[in-house]
Amino acid sequence: MSETDAVTEADVRAVAARARAAAAEVAPLSRAAKDRALLAMADALDGATADIWAANATDVSRARAQGLSEQLIDRLSLDAGRIAAIADGLRDIAALPDPVGEVVRGYTQPNGLEIKQIRVPLGVVAMVYEARPNVTVDAAGIALKSGNAVLLRGSASAYESNSVLVRVLSEAAAKTGLPADAVQLVPGVDRSSVGHLLRARGLVDVIIPRGGAGLISYVVDNATVPVIETGIGNVHVYVDAAADLDMAERIVVNSKISRPSVCNAAETLLVHTAVADEFLPRITSALQVQGVIVHGDSAFSAVHADVVPANDEDWASEYLSLDIAAKVVADVDEAIAHIRRWSSGHTEAIVTNDLSAARHFVARVDSAAVMVNASTRFTDGSEFGFGAEIGISTQKLHARGPMGLPELTSTKWVVYGDGQTR
Amino acid sequence: MSETDAVTEADVRAVAARARAAAAEVAPLSRAAKDRALLAMADALDGATADIWAANATDVSRARAQGLSEQLIDRLSLDAGRIAAIADGLRDIAALPDPVGEVVRGYTQPNGLEIKQIRVPLGVVAMVYEARPNVTVDAAGIALKSGNAVLLRGSASAYESNSVLVRVLSEAAAKTGLPADAVQLVPGVDRSSVGHLLRARGLVDVIIPRGGAGLISYVVDNATVPVIETGIGNVHVYVDAAADLDMAERIVVNSKISRPSVCNAAETLLVHTAVADEFLPRITSALQVQGVIVHGDSAFSAVHADVVPANDEDWASEYLSLDIAAKVVADVDEAIAHIRRWSSGHTEAIVTNDLSAARHFVARVDSAAVMVNASTRFTDGSEFGFGAEIGISTQKLHARGPMGLPELTSTKWVVYGDGQTR
Repeated sequence: MSETDAVTEADVRAVAARARAAAAEVAPLSRAAKDRALLAMADALDGATADIWAANATDVSRARAQGLSEQLIDRLSLDAGRIAAIADGLRDIAALPDPVGEVVRGYTQPNGLEIKQIRVPLGVVAMVYEARPNVTVDAAGIALKSGNAVLLRGSASAYESNSVLVRVLSEAAAKTGLPADAVQLVPGVDRSSVGHLLRARGLVDVIIPRGGAGLISYVVDNATVPVIETGIGNVHVYVDAAADLDMAERIVVNSKISRPSVCNAAETLLVHTAVADEFLPRITSALQVQGVIVHGDSAFSAVHADVVPANDEDWASEYLSLDIAAKVVADVDEAIAHIRRWSSGHTEAIVTNDLSAARHFVARVDSAAVMVNASTRFTDGSEFGFGAEIGISTQKLHARGPMGLPELTSTKWVVYGDGQTR
Repeated sequence: MSETDAVTEADVRAVAARARAAAAEVAPLSRAAKDRALLAMADALDGATADIWAANATDVSRARAQGLSEQLIDRLSLDAGRIAAIADGLRDIAALPDPVGEVVRGYTQPNGLEIKQIRVPLGVVAMVYEARPNVTVDAAGIALKSGNAVLLRGSASAYESNSVLVRVLSEAAAKTGLPADAVQLVPGVDRSSVGHLLRARGLVDVIIPRGGAGLISYVVDNATVPVIETGIGNVHVYVDAAADLDMAERIVVNSKISRPSVCNAAETLLVHTAVADEFLPRITSALQVQGVIVHGDSAFSAVHADVVPANDEDWASEYLSLDIAAKVVADVDEAIAHIRRWSSGHTEAIVTNDLSAARHFVARVDSAAVMVNASTRFTDGSEFGFGAEIGISTQKLHARGPMGLPELTSTKWVVYGDGQTR
């Protein structure tokens, strides 16, 4: 990768400037033109399976040589089945309605002015993400469908895979009449090229980092371009005094173990003291049976010798593993206070049959998603019915929670008159 | 102001932390509770007219001693009539519907999960603004109505006025049961205190700068807290080949002269070459009669000896004065290209009876508001029927164009189930 080592700010700005020019051409395209490009991109991926696989094999063997974890290598690896699934993802995006042009608000003023607020593309969307080549294709598809140009900056460990994927996507899009620069890889494999991208204000409209806490805080700290923070999930399940304890057990276990490595997996369990005697032994046992290490307060530690004593580090942790922090609280307000203190604002759940407690919890927990009697694992674009998801925003500005196509748009006010003046 | 000179980062963060605690109390308040506070604040302002006037007199006499312009002194000055109008503004805000709790989207998934996206307050909103004490009250009212705590950092030249205003507002709100810290002045009168505020990430949810280009770019360059850029308006009017030239003259003159110092006033006139022979002499004369200096290209210069030759500085200028840049273009696409190159993305207008030209212009001009056959001066919260406006966003993320109450909210996903798991 010697050719990518010396990426300068000028290089990155040149790529971004080409994206900006492309964005102006993509924005007014009809849905038909965009869907045609998406379907051509899907077919091109299918046709390039061998090339993609070969490039991916280079990335994977280098990753093995560098001693990357099996989990990371699994995320990085592509095979024919995965490539076909990624291509089908583009076809799914083509089948979704076009968010551009949607009239968000519209009315006529007393002076006869017809005022409409309509959805328009953001412009240039940049993604900074880790070693998942499927994100390269998903992000390109979602960005194009919503009328944007996209700049893709994946992990160095997926550089060969991403290079081939972006070449295939860009060429296929260009054959249907889109500008080739609508889908571009940002050159460079070290953080300095990310840094240049983060400061390309005026050329890039938004940066969406997807990955671990380290990547996201690096982006937030260094960006002058607006950022949408995603995906850090220190997720809580609160089991209320009025919970159905069978349901509570199912929800806690599912929230923790169905996929521990993802951002909507539960990391902390809070239990109302009134049900602690009954619930602590059974939930501790149910979790331990599944291989979960419980990091508990003194009440939990009293239940079983294998409970590890919890401290502030546990309350703060996004384990992403078969670990859970656990604590007894005096009431719903103590649960809310704990969540306000420690949560990353992603998802929290309450299990209760007390409507008043549910409403109190929902109104006061300040997170992107609040579940009442449902697993935290449902905070997901697909589970919400979006059809496509580019990430889960944990910030409050612009987009919050799972982000689909409308979240990659802005709005514009269009006013028609007959010569009105003030 | 010696007590405010040594404001440290810790001082500003302490104020922001109190705002954060207050925000948690304000967010779940009912509309009735918030309206009661707003009406009490209005009455308290009326009751404190003498105190406010006295504090303002101190600011005004210091401003005069410092040689501030009459325009700035006019903006700074309060009298009984202005104070009454500001108080009435709070009553108007109380009469507006509450944006909090609005269901933006809501549906039931096949698995029975009931999913709702509802409006919630942003949390802590910080305003950084210039010497207009009315902004202090308007911003406090709009922020509280939308369920937020507010941090106010006005200009040093309005410090005495703002101190009294915030004390009166905070005390009145507290008497109705709101936390006194829901409305606070940020201590300090130099830029370092603004700098501390800009970096209070995690405590402040959004910063809205209102003022000149210098203030706004300082905020954007230095903030780690999310920013909503406002109000820089390099605004264009394009007179198309198919324009009604009487209408075009009325719109150009109104856009330029009805209030030249505001952000929605026109700064550049673009004229299609097909109507140049007829339109250039009459619009040049109509503008000059009103005292406007026309900075024109060679076609305009040929019309009248008093036309000043325009250069790139003119195309880039937000004059905010009785000046206008003017240029003949070959067609609508050249007009669009000029606007894309030079506009600040605030407002542009086209005057035409050609529907196809209008649609082409609307689809390709990438600004917060696009007017067809109407004055650019209509980009305004009041003219859009919002009832209250906190500024005009010229950025694409979160809010674009005039910002009313909903623009000071975020959303939250609330999901009700019966024990669903994945």
